[in-house]
Amino acid sequence: MPELRKNILTGNQVVIAVERSKRPSDLKSDNDEFENLSEYDEKCPLCLGNEEMTPPEQFRIQSDDKWVVRAIPNKFPILSKTSEVLENNEDIFIKKNGVGIHEVLIESNKHNKSFFNMKSNDFNNILRMYKNRFEKLLKFEFTSYVSLFKNNLKKAGASLVHSHAQIITVPIVPENIEIELRNAKEFYNSNKKNIFEFIIESELNRDERVIYNSENFSIIAPFASAYNYEVEIIFKNLSRFEKIKDTEINELSILMERLFQKYKQVLGVIPFNMIVHSLPKGRYDMDDKYNVHIHIVPRLSNQAGFELGTGIMVNAVPPENAAQYLKFDVKSEKQK
Amino acid sequence: MPELRKNILTGNQVVIAVERSKRPSDLKSDNDEFENLSEYDEKCPLCLGNEEMTPPEQFRIQSDDKWVVRAIPNKFPILSKTSEVLENNEDIFIKKNGVGIHEVLIESNKHNKSFFNMKSNDFNNILRMYKNRFEKLLKFEFTSYVSLFKNNLKKAGASLVHSHAQIITVPIVPENIEIELRNAKEFYNSNKKNIFEFIIESELNRDERVIYNSENFSIIAPFASAYNYEVEIIFKNLSRFEKIKDTEINELSILMERLFQKYKQVLGVIPFNMIVHSLPKGRYDMDDKYNVHIHIVPRLSNQAGFELGTGIMVNAVPPENAAQYLKFDVKSEKQK
Repeated sequence: MPELRKNILTGNQVVIAVERSKRPSDLKSDNDEFENLSEYDEKCPLCLGNEEMTPPEQFRIQSDDKWVVRAIPNKFPILSKTSEVLENNEDIFIKKNGVGIHEVLIESNKHNKSFFNMKSNDFNNILRMYKNRFEKLLKFEFTSYVSLFKNNLKKAGASLVHSHAQIITVPIVPENIEIELRNAKEFYNSNKKNIFEFIIESELNRDERVIYNSENFSIIAPFASAYNYEVEIIFKNLSRFEKIKDTEINELSILMERLFQKYKQVLGVIPFNMIVHSLPKGRYDMDDKYNVHIHIVPRLSNQAGFELGTGIMVNAVPPENAAQYLKFDVKSEKQK
Repeated sequence: MPELRKNILTGNQVVIAVERSKRPSDLKSDNDEFENLSEYDEKCPLCLGNEEMTPPEQFRIQSDDKWVVRAIPNKFPILSKTSEVLENNEDIFIKKNGVGIHEVLIESNKHNKSFFNMKSNDFNNILRMYKNRFEKLLKFEFTSYVSLFKNNLKKAGASLVHSHAQIITVPIVPENIEIELRNAKEFYNSNKKNIFEFIIESELNRDERVIYNSENFSIIAPFASAYNYEVEIIFKNLSRFEKIKDTEINELSILMERLFQKYKQVLGVIPFNMIVHSLPKGRYDMDDKYNVHIHIVPRLSNQAGFELGTGIMVNAVPPENAAQYLKFDVKSEKQK
């Protein structure tokens, strides 16, 4: 029997379409974009040695005299950097200038590295770059919100195969974030409890959708997963990504290595999006009511007319099944 | 300069990314799925002569002793038909049984017909079938909302190439519709005016995004188009699709023939979704505040991490440009 489920944080509705239920083997990716890549591609602007193909670098982490990760401006930004925000609301046509910064975060100096073959020290450098860019871009006066995300492979919207993320500042708080803040605040006011703490407690109690739980992170397949094999990494003690501590970076690096190894084992090298949700600039009233969380969204099927028309997502993989397949244990698997 | 625009009906935000602006030739579809099709495909369950491959027919329109359009149950429904709706809300895990009917609406008895080569009399039959299925499915007690949509080609989520739409009854009012109803009601209360009438008037005054305007329909490229070459057909005198009159069907059939010919001329045979938005069952208080509208959403680019994470869509084709390319005139072009 299919189920209609509701995400209490986002308000999103989803049909878990059990009758159409899919096993991992139905979804396995052919990952042809990743086959036969070598460490260096002379045409790739993100490769080590091709730095002159990109605009001037904004940040790097070095090792052995060469960069290992670096941040550069996006050559084709979706927003532009200017000094003022103009509003122009005529009748019902409400518009604003799109002022913002759009950077590409190069996650490796090697063309054939991906989240599916990186080690924890690779993730460590990446997370330290993410933190630095969050800190830096939040300082611009016109920044209201910083969106950090990653598109992996064409089907997830990537135009380059070389591992990279993107960071964009927006001069407004996006509607999706406003909704999460509103729901988190209402939940706090009604229950005198942080909604993320409550989700973590409930999920641990039930233990049907927990993939891994550590000191600072809970990794779950969300109850109302909108996408097949969607995973959420909830930070237990952090409301703003830019405040992430070294101990948390170290812990998360190990978890990311393990999680993506597990994904590869179960589904192959898949197209996916990764999205960091963190508090907007200011909003200090929300620090005790909101937690940073990272969405990992495999792109194994297309949204179609029903989803676009109703906003109700259809997911043929119950998150309980996804969690069973993706479950891992850091200690025991290390001992093997 | 990119612009951030807001849709006053849905609340959706969009970046019109002029810097990345695309001409129609950048987006032209290669339509390989449609090349070399013949009228009949022996493996296609939707073809004339293959009726035994589908579940029992629910509706047909005949001509010359054979069906020209027909409705059948979907073999893989996303919701199932049972007699009761069970609710089961434990803690924060809010779920309901997914009770509903899911039909496939076969739009032609020929395998190689598509919206891009159909004539107005084909559209006439299709619209009459849509009306019949709306009327019929609204009668089920468990129906709260009827969603009618079409996925054209794989990239838009279609698994069969033979022209068809789908209709699904849902036991709740979907969140997207609730938001439209709420915004339409608030607009009416503040402005003593139907929001759709106001949009039509404003668009006709400005004449930048109008594609065609007739007695009963306004066809526009929406101000905050979330997708490249998105088009909206707004019904001027109708709040519920099932009440569509024969004169309106006749008029709309001609407009659909012209609009899709124009699409083909500008962009080729493209993947697209079509979505009908109509009032939920009941809600009689909304009849003067809401109009039926049909979204036509080409799927020429992918949503990626930024869109998923923020809800802000990015569109590299200003709707003003889309409208200029898609503009048509029924009379003058008929005289040619």
